[in-house]
Amino acid sequence: MSVTVNARVADMGRWQPDSRGRLQEAALALYSERGFDQTTAAQIALQAGVTERTFFRHFADKREVLFGGSALLRERIVAGVAGAPAGEGALDAVSRGLDAAAAMLGEFRRDLSRQRQAVIDANPELRERELAKLADYAAAVAAALRQRGVSEPQATLAAEASMSVLRVALQRWASGDDDRDLTAIMRDSVAELRAVAASR
Amino acid sequence: MSVTVNARVADMGRWQPDSRGRLQEAALALYSERGFDQTTAAQIALQAGVTERTFFRHFADKREVLFGGSALLRERIVAGVAGAPAGEGALDAVSRGLDAAAAMLGEFRRDLSRQRQAVIDANPELRERELAKLADYAAAVAAALRQRGVSEPQATLAAEASMSVLRVALQRWASGDDDRDLTAIMRDSVAELRAVAASR
Repeated sequence: MSVTVNARVADMGRWQPDSRGRLQEAALALYSERGFDQTTAAQIALQAGVTERTFFRHFADKREVLFGGSALLRERIVAGVAGAPAGEGALDAVSRGLDAAAAMLGEFRRDLSRQRQAVIDANPELRERELAKLADYAAAVAAALRQRGVSEPQATLAAEASMSVLRVALQRWASGDDDRDLTAIMRDSVAELRAVAASR
Repeated sequence: MSVTVNARVADMGRWQPDSRGRLQEAALALYSERGFDQTTAAQIALQAGVTERTFFRHFADKREVLFGGSALLRERIVAGVAGAPAGEGALDAVSRGLDAAAAMLGEFRRDLSRQRQAVIDANPELRERELAKLADYAAAVAAALRQRGVSEPQATLAAEASMSVLRVALQRWASGDDDRDLTAIMRDSVAELRAVAASR
């Protein structure tokens, strides 16, 4: 998910403050109205009131508006898992990674997150990209679990289940049907995973 | 050429006996040697000793050699879940779907399954296609669970976890490191999921 972090403005030098945020908002509005494939970077820039060049200073391409920040997210999740106390079980360790994800993703606007998800769900190519990202995070989490001594196939099963939890929790949060913050919804979703796995 | 007759021949009309099997074997060998993108349908047909036209009678394209049968697999999995006794828990119902998958997939040759997986893993586009298939199965399983009265997010979490189990079990089986049949490995993998979800 792309990030609107105002703290970044200091790094942006002579760029307009918050042009990144305005570009994201404009892009999501246009992707929703016209469809992702029918929207150009020039149109996004126009709607955001910046030049096309400014668009490309912030985003490598149209897709990065939707998937920027994913390397950082992956890093935070893995750090959460790796930083769990020694001896903590696989799912508790994974849950710490999810807490880290919730802390980062929970800073975004719910309405934009919802819009972003709808755009992705409407486009098979974007959906495949999202699945590939989640698979990549899962592989990184599984590696972090193995480093903690969790054996296979448990490391992979826990890691992939954690990505289901992440996706489900994000959707619940973005939908606005659940007023709690993302951290609370994430933890609740981990509890739901435990419950369903324990069901007979 | 072998004159071995199998049950499929009756359906093949004037096609050569087992040309489908030989095409699959030839395709996997060529995908492994040269890479998927560098292999043509004509080359596969040549190696299998059939015409290119025969290739296209059996497969819509090169990718279908790898992903053919997926609609049937999806149907079997969903039927397994839907057919679970009323009142059975989500994971037990899902486990019946996985039994159905194991019965179908376990009939293939392990060495070809291994080769198939290596080809997919080596090609990002094929990997995305595989993930999309698994996501599609998961969505169908979640729908079948909801029809059984399982609520969200448990239906989605159980369904997606079942697809992790399917993938993990298939890899264990295809690797040849585990001599048991796919059904036994599948059930063991479900047990591993339960164990990791119960871990603290």
